Amino acid sequence: MHHVRFRDPAGAVRSGEWHGDSVSFGGETYDLDEVDILPPCEPSKIVCIGRNYAKHAEERNEDVPDRPMLFLKPPNTLAGHGDTVTLPAGKENVEHEAELGVVIGEQCRNVAAEDADSVIAGYTILNDVSNRDDQDIEKNWVRGKAFDGAAPIGPVVADPDHLADDAQISLRVNGETRQDSSIDYLIFSIPELIEEITTYMTLEAGDVISTGTPEGVGPLEDGDHVEVEVEGVGVLEHDVRQE
Amino acid sequence: MHHVRFRDPAGAVRSGEWHGDSVSFGGETYDLDEVDILPPCEPSKIVCIGRNYAKHAEERNEDVPDRPMLFLKPPNTLAGHGDTVTLPAGKENVEHEAELGVVIGEQCRNVAAEDADSVIAGYTILNDVSNRDDQDIEKNWVRGKAFDGAAPIGPVVADPDHLADDAQISLRVNGETRQDSSIDYLIFSIPELIEEITTYMTLEAGDVISTGTPEGVGPLEDGDHVEVEVEGVGVLEHDVRQE
Repeated sequence: MHHVRFRDPAGAVRSGEWHGDSVSFGGETYDLDEVDILPPCEPSKIVCIGRNYAKHAEERNEDVPDRPMLFLKPPNTLAGHGDTVTLPAGKENVEHEAELGVVIGEQCRNVAAEDADSVIAGYTILNDVSNRDDQDIEKNWVRGKAFDGAAPIGPVVADPDHLADDAQISLRVNGETRQDSSIDYLIFSIPELIEEITTYMTLEAGDVISTGTPEGVGPLEDGDHVEVEVEGVGVLEHDVRQE
Repeated sequence: MHHVRFRDPAGAVRSGEWHGDSVSFGGETYDLDEVDILPPCEPSKIVCIGRNYAKHAEERNEDVPDRPMLFLKPPNTLAGHGDTVTLPAGKENVEHEAELGVVIGEQCRNVAAEDADSVIAGYTILNDVSNRDDQDIEKNWVRGKAFDGAAPIGPVVADPDHLADDAQISLRVNGETRQDSSIDYLIFSIPELIEEITTYMTLEAGDVISTGTPEGVGPLEDGDHVEVEVEGVGVLEHDVRQE
């Protein structure tokens, strides 16, 4: 099943099922243009992983880390499927990063890698929108990665059985393919990430781990239409506006 | 007025008034040992400022930044007045950092420094507990600053008129004074911080800006009792346990 949160025509927020060209809740089915698709979960934090595909570290002229490189996106970064993300004003180099997101199903701490499957609710898709002007000069990536709208997410949380170990991950801007890889190239696996993060932090139901981006990151500009696809999970779409 | 959140003897969470040796809500007054003091606000994020006192930057062998240095503590870091903070396991150097906290009163974005007072609900106190083992080697301070319990906060939110421009800020461990300075030495002022942060991020009611620590940071160890005092705001106390 592909779980979706949406605002129905009466304005109520519903947790229902995604059918590709429609959504349903409580026996009612709605066309996508009748509803607003919302972020599919409500994270208290998004824990992001940097340089988790070797070819992306290479294109950024960075070494592959010897343990997961962590950074944070707080709830102000969330944007939904179909939303328009406003890039931070006055920045010249803002880029897309296609990522697979792991949605946590229950409050957890100190989860061993071999038990990690038990705390995963499912999988979603993110664009880790990155303001390189600031990211490249600041110690902690706050202006670079935690600005409003820096985490478009969705449209669904897919049950775990929908994701193959070698699922394709890709990103298109205005129909042109920019990123095209496979989650098979993740350096640190999802169970390893869950073990490492929960050694330090409690994860809550709805929290998201964004697992890093493959090679092919590139610029976003005013008017761009972005599609991020993870095979078996779906396609996240959003627009871009320059302030 | 000094605002406090507490769990009353019947288990209900109350937003009441702090009287130093008692708290009250709805005409009832309780001794402190009858209630559990909770974090005085419920931040969706804590935006922290690094190196915002020159003498602290010096003791850490770091330059003073030319714009505010930002980092993040998510909600899992919260601990309350009277709580026992468990230090992350296996770390040799975990330190205290006394900080003044600014509590935001309303959702806001793009707030000019001259309008900053209008979005401040009041002031609180934090200990920015810092795991130097990891902070000193990681790019983004997540293991170093965002572990569970890394943000003891409270006990109150004091109305803005309780804080003088030259209020003293100090920290004691087991009664011994470790830090003793004044918020008059802040490099970037509170209005400047609010303008800079809201250029990038929406702040929510209850969000906290932790304004940085003065010189005198030092080690925390199993069994320590910590008091952080900001003149006019109060005294935050917590205990420390090594896992």
